[in-house]
Amino acid sequence: MTEQPHSAARAFDIQLAERAEVTDSLLCVGLDPVRGRMPLGIPDNAAGVVEFCSSLIEATEDLALAYKPNLAFFLAYGADGLDALYAVRKRIPNDIPMILDCKVGDVGSTAQAYASAWFDELGADAITVHPYLGEDSLEPFLARPGKGVIVLAKTSNAGSGDLQDKPITGDQRPVYHYIAGRAAAWDAAYPASVGLVVGATWPDQLRSIREIAPDLPILLPGVGAQGGDVAASVRAGLRPDGTGLLCSSSRGIMYASAGADFADAARGAAIRFRDEINAARLTNIA
Amino acid sequence: MTEQPHSAARAFDIQLAERAEVTDSLLCVGLDPVRGRMPLGIPDNAAGVVEFCSSLIEATEDLALAYKPNLAFFLAYGADGLDALYAVRKRIPNDIPMILDCKVGDVGSTAQAYASAWFDELGADAITVHPYLGEDSLEPFLARPGKGVIVLAKTSNAGSGDLQDKPITGDQRPVYHYIAGRAAAWDAAYPASVGLVVGATWPDQLRSIREIAPDLPILLPGVGAQGGDVAASVRAGLRPDGTGLLCSSSRGIMYASAGADFADAARGAAIRFRDEINAARLTNIA
Repeated sequence: MTEQPHSAARAFDIQLAERAEVTDSLLCVGLDPVRGRMPLGIPDNAAGVVEFCSSLIEATEDLALAYKPNLAFFLAYGADGLDALYAVRKRIPNDIPMILDCKVGDVGSTAQAYASAWFDELGADAITVHPYLGEDSLEPFLARPGKGVIVLAKTSNAGSGDLQDKPITGDQRPVYHYIAGRAAAWDAAYPASVGLVVGATWPDQLRSIREIAPDLPILLPGVGAQGGDVAASVRAGLRPDGTGLLCSSSRGIMYASAGADFADAARGAAIRFRDEINAARLTNIA
Repeated sequence: MTEQPHSAARAFDIQLAERAEVTDSLLCVGLDPVRGRMPLGIPDNAAGVVEFCSSLIEATEDLALAYKPNLAFFLAYGADGLDALYAVRKRIPNDIPMILDCKVGDVGSTAQAYASAWFDELGADAITVHPYLGEDSLEPFLARPGKGVIVLAKTSNAGSGDLQDKPITGDQRPVYHYIAGRAAAWDAAYPASVGLVVGATWPDQLRSIREIAPDLPILLPGVGAQGGDVAASVRAGLRPDGTGLLCSSSRGIMYASAGADFADAARGAAIRFRDEINAARLTNIA
């Protein structure tokens, strides 16, 4: 296994709290380089992906609580796309947590191989995971001190209720409540820091999940392109300490301009989004 | 998008049925090249992965209903691992269906990127998917004529009941029954062929799933290393036409010998497994 400078022994949730303090930002910058949609002057290939993402990182690094590259958009470039992801990872400064949005979920021996790939080889600080296979499938990730394991609970898509909203017999809780409770228990029982994914499109559900998991970091995608309400989500999901959220925006920042000024436009959009989040934090605390 | 010779317009389930007829085999050969566990004479790197898997394919191609590379084991080799997967894919003959075991599940726009990556770029005939995000998250895969979308229902791991066995209020069915019913409905409603994953470790559950989804192909991992019973599973899951199962074995074939004779040993193990499956098929039909 390659030694990575990023595999800090400090707990992922501590890294996040420290970074939130330093930057006064809960903004998680998503890196979703959509194939066929490069800004002017950037080639639509794997080398272009590295150039595009590197410029975005440079333009936003003082504003970002974390970066979240989404594996799918890199893989859509074919075999070279993974090289691009490795190159982009190296452009993220060591003191900024990197969450790989890879939504992994597989049986133990296979999960072990994913843990090697994403934690040891790529040097991700945290990954997103599926809860469908249950606790034993997540143990290879949960066993990693210093790493973050962010469990899908209530996702941002309109049809997420198909399974996630189904009431489970007994106490009639929806599946996403059950998963939030399991995640909180795993956080207490394992060396890794556990978090949750809750779409910003569901502020009421977010509020109820925060009650079940009062301390867990919650990754909040779905703002912007997916229609989530920032202020409502921040009010619903913030911890009493004013942090505990990673408010993720990808395309609203990356594609703020389709022109050669994309990096400046991305910085502007990131500042606006950070400030919008912070305004809602102040309202919440007041 | 690259044009692939493998993206046949014929339905995936028809491809499977024809191949089962030609080979008289329900054996799905899993390709899980475990890092640190190469046979004698094969280097433990990405080039070695290609050499190892190519030899296994050559040794078993007349016996295989399908091949199933598992993404995780390739990615554990770092960025080069994806190049190895692309190279291995090219070694699989066009007339043998290739299932990428990637267990994807993400919101629509991201799922679209995965569909491009695995169907268009890699040229997979089918992929495995997570049902946690619901129907709309799977539409980019389900919309693909000729492709197979194999949905996790009841997985082989000991702890799979954590969520999958939970009874859903109303008719008290477990989650895996609900998912099997959804998958059968998706198969009827969409251009792609839908299948299910059911661990060979759960023959009773397999029997009940077969009742809910009488026609769907079922991928049956967990034989061998994971302790599943071949004969019980075949009896529980076979369709009346004597097919409808992909009995998957990975390590039992790949690591039948750790020596330089690994390919011959793999062939021997594949023949024994094929014959064991066929003996159970005959018992079932008789």
